[in-house]
Amino acid sequence: MADGKRVGIAGATGAVGLEMLRVLDERAFPVASLTAMASDRGGDRTVAFGDEDVRVVPLSEESLEGLDVVLFATSAAVSSEFVPLAVEAGAVAVDNSRAFRMDPEVPLVVPEVNPGAMESHKGVIANPNCSTIQIVLPLEVVRREAGLVRVVASTYQSVSGTGIAAMDELIDQTRAVLEGEPVVSAVYPTQIGFNCLPHIDDFDDDGNTREETKMVNETRKILGVPDLSITVTCVRVPVLRSHAVAMNVETVHPLDPDELRPLLDSSPGMRVLDDPSSAGYPTQVDSAGGDDVWVGRIRRDESVRNGLWMWVVADNLRKGAALNAVQIAELL
Amino acid sequence: MADGKRVGIAGATGAVGLEMLRVLDERAFPVASLTAMASDRGGDRTVAFGDEDVRVVPLSEESLEGLDVVLFATSAAVSSEFVPLAVEAGAVAVDNSRAFRMDPEVPLVVPEVNPGAMESHKGVIANPNCSTIQIVLPLEVVRREAGLVRVVASTYQSVSGTGIAAMDELIDQTRAVLEGEPVVSAVYPTQIGFNCLPHIDDFDDDGNTREETKMVNETRKILGVPDLSITVTCVRVPVLRSHAVAMNVETVHPLDPDELRPLLDSSPGMRVLDDPSSAGYPTQVDSAGGDDVWVGRIRRDESVRNGLWMWVVADNLRKGAALNAVQIAELL
Repeated sequence: MADGKRVGIAGATGAVGLEMLRVLDERAFPVASLTAMASDRGGDRTVAFGDEDVRVVPLSEESLEGLDVVLFATSAAVSSEFVPLAVEAGAVAVDNSRAFRMDPEVPLVVPEVNPGAMESHKGVIANPNCSTIQIVLPLEVVRREAGLVRVVASTYQSVSGTGIAAMDELIDQTRAVLEGEPVVSAVYPTQIGFNCLPHIDDFDDDGNTREETKMVNETRKILGVPDLSITVTCVRVPVLRSHAVAMNVETVHPLDPDELRPLLDSSPGMRVLDDPSSAGYPTQVDSAGGDDVWVGRIRRDESVRNGLWMWVVADNLRKGAALNAVQIAELL
Repeated sequence: MADGKRVGIAGATGAVGLEMLRVLDERAFPVASLTAMASDRGGDRTVAFGDEDVRVVPLSEESLEGLDVVLFATSAAVSSEFVPLAVEAGAVAVDNSRAFRMDPEVPLVVPEVNPGAMESHKGVIANPNCSTIQIVLPLEVVRREAGLVRVVASTYQSVSGTGIAAMDELIDQTRAVLEGEPVVSAVYPTQIGFNCLPHIDDFDDDGNTREETKMVNETRKILGVPDLSITVTCVRVPVLRSHAVAMNVETVHPLDPDELRPLLDSSPGMRVLDDPSSAGYPTQVDSAGGDDVWVGRIRRDESVRNGLWMWVVADNLRKGAALNAVQIAELL
């Protein structure tokens, strides 16, 4: 531990923060000390880190002192306030919120796709949106092989992307429906139990949600294609964990599904499961808790000259958040 | 009742058949007599039609005698056998299966879109696939106003499309997950409770499912655009009733969302709910049990010259099946 890092986790009691603790432990990240911080003053709490129980301290200027790396799993508002304080105190901050992602001074990194972007960092590295992370892995392979003309994607996002309270709401509403009791919505504006909501994050004036705009802008930045034609509809589905994306890609050059499958399967962080005759395709339940981005339903789209469909599934809390953040910290 | 029709329903005990009985009653269809038939010999059963209990008889050459109209809510295999027998016996058959939909001799009809196609019928009229019906209503309006270049759609389809056993399986699996018990799959190849399956109907050799191929071919036939560029991914979601579709449309001419909304809202069978700032968008739970095709999230897609997104929701058992079939019978 002598040459390990002094690691802080801000937002340690949330869905992503708890997953960061598990990933750090599983990957044997060299932790010299661990500081678990939470922005709400929720009284005496501990979180598990390996076999230890770590006391949660309030996130503050003081708690950020003396750390080498701070992983932020906090809201954009909290990150905006505390990430600069962490950097001033001498740490490198890996931030999972949207606060710094589109800042031209801040690298937005998926280690398998654009690790080189990290070199220019000035103390802050942004972790992309969960849905963005899982699509850029296969998109980068397709871009290198055949060039990208246009991407049209629809998402099937689980409630854990909203947080623990949303997972509880889905469970409570589901139970209420099964028992014929009234459904109470608090986290979402309307019922999510046995329902799909085409609404993730706030709406912008152009009718897109911020989640949709994030996926467009972040994908362009990570792939280094600032004018990439990409459009998305983001939908919350009554699933607890992992996101799926139905992704339609038009390429410059033809790319045969039979060529693409081994390319994706041999790329770091990705696996292909594509044997539809035996119901061989990835699903959210199967991918939950794992590290890989799974791709299936790879097939031609005959509606354009060079069209492809892919069904992309990954655990939004792991590769979509905690794992990617820890991988960034490992690269430091 | 003297000048009413002698109506038969084949498959009267299934999810769609039961809905047909309700729709006939609600719309005061002129029924002189009602014959409820089922292809399985499930013993003594009755189904409700208004205030009456109607005894279910086995579907057979004899039971099809002396009827004016028979609505088939049966599998393609059963329809293939019994629809010709109904026609031979002198009835007009409205068939909800895929058996006759692509037959060039058989009209495939959505009354709001192509009622004229019925004129050429030779005893059989096909009712389109549930997901097809709900997208062709808005697509026909867009086609008329601005011309269609390409359609890319992803579906969020409820389990009632599979039938009553699938609704029971979703409920049973959901309860098992909540109670930490093992999940048993019988209707679907893998877990649907809290999960999404990119798999509806069988897979074809090109990697598409038959559901996807049906949506492509049926949309072309109904709109009368045989070479329409359209591509679909069909996904089953853990929702009991109603289907949603995220539909991306590229048009020949520009079409402003502000122009399109009133056009859709004033078209028969359609309603617009598109006030995202107050969570005003259609959802499956809200649309269930109703007759309208709801459209929301109407916005520009800036990734092509003339691009639009729509979120289209309808009750798959009503407008997607039973209501459309009864509307066809009303036109006869």
